[in-house]
Amino acid sequence: MTNASTGQMTPATSGVLLVLAHPALERSRANRALAKAAKGLSGVTFKDLYEIYPDFVIDIESEQAALSAHDVVALQFPLYWYSTPALMKEWLDLVWLHGFAYGEGGEALKGKKLFVACTTGAGAKAYHAHGYNRFSMDEFLRPLEQTAHLCGMVWEAPFVVHGAAVKDDAALKAEAERYRARVASLLPAKTEA
Amino acid sequence: MTNASTGQMTPATSGVLLVLAHPALERSRANRALAKAAKGLSGVTFKDLYEIYPDFVIDIESEQAALSAHDVVALQFPLYWYSTPALMKEWLDLVWLHGFAYGEGGEALKGKKLFVACTTGAGAKAYHAHGYNRFSMDEFLRPLEQTAHLCGMVWEAPFVVHGAAVKDDAALKAEAERYRARVASLLPAKTEA
Repeated sequence: MTNASTGQMTPATSGVLLVLAHPALERSRANRALAKAAKGLSGVTFKDLYEIYPDFVIDIESEQAALSAHDVVALQFPLYWYSTPALMKEWLDLVWLHGFAYGEGGEALKGKKLFVACTTGAGAKAYHAHGYNRFSMDEFLRPLEQTAHLCGMVWEAPFVVHGAAVKDDAALKAEAERYRARVASLLPAKTEA
Repeated sequence: MTNASTGQMTPATSGVLLVLAHPALERSRANRALAKAAKGLSGVTFKDLYEIYPDFVIDIESEQAALSAHDVVALQFPLYWYSTPALMKEWLDLVWLHGFAYGEGGEALKGKKLFVACTTGAGAKAYHAHGYNRFSMDEFLRPLEQTAHLCGMVWEAPFVVHGAAVKDDAALKAEAERYRARVASLLPAKTEA
């Protein structure tokens, strides 16, 4: 963003930081389709954690800078054991630190939105007290919801694609469109210079 | 275990596999005290994941063999962002596979107990609808509870040490004793040869 009066770049504090973690993206039709649909939007910065950090060695400073520079943090991942894949957890553990994300002096994420988008193997009916996964997606996502809360972030309603692997191309295309629209709705309203 | 009639080693299918994940164990008085108290028990096999796999490169076959050889799986970790540290998640993601832990042909863990032991930074009152973490430990541990359920395991009541970092030596010693007794109670009753 350029400051109209000085012509200087001001810190970009807008847009969506879309952070994807899928250990085998080449085999995930669903996550590829979703990411492709959303990352093309103007105002979206895309990061594929397993591409950037295949050895789990995370550049904490660069990740903190990216978080600081956006108004919305979107986490996209396949649900693995009812939670994030390990590399997204490592990214949370190492980057969302005391003094940065929470605690004394830790206000870098305050007021930003946290948006979770995930795909599941099982159908929607499984995520229910009477389904075979016995709990709802909201219940499985409590750790992330409370992470947002502790950091002073706004928890957005999650976007979930159930039974991702068995969807046909048309159904996936529809989900991708729905995702693109949802991410677009999270972008701050454009202000004219 | 040696078979008395043949003198051959029979597959050891007893005891507790105690799997610890703490990224900075040298700085954790609580987790060191707990581990020390429990790992000395006869019938407990101890694994420190961050010591064995500092580079996150997990030997899946060896880990599956260890799981198969025990009746009880105990997971010990500090609660990080209301969940397991990343390496324990990677161990779950890579080792607890379809066809081994669940799904068709995946019965290796069936009937075993899953026992979670964790330490938290905040006091007990924080883990409550009206506390600042807003949810109970049971709610944060749903992903692990349902993981156990999907694998046909028995979910044991978790062992939790709240406010671990601020406990004095006497309090920690008492927690370690309580932990040792709890782990001992999970060991299968000894049968004489």
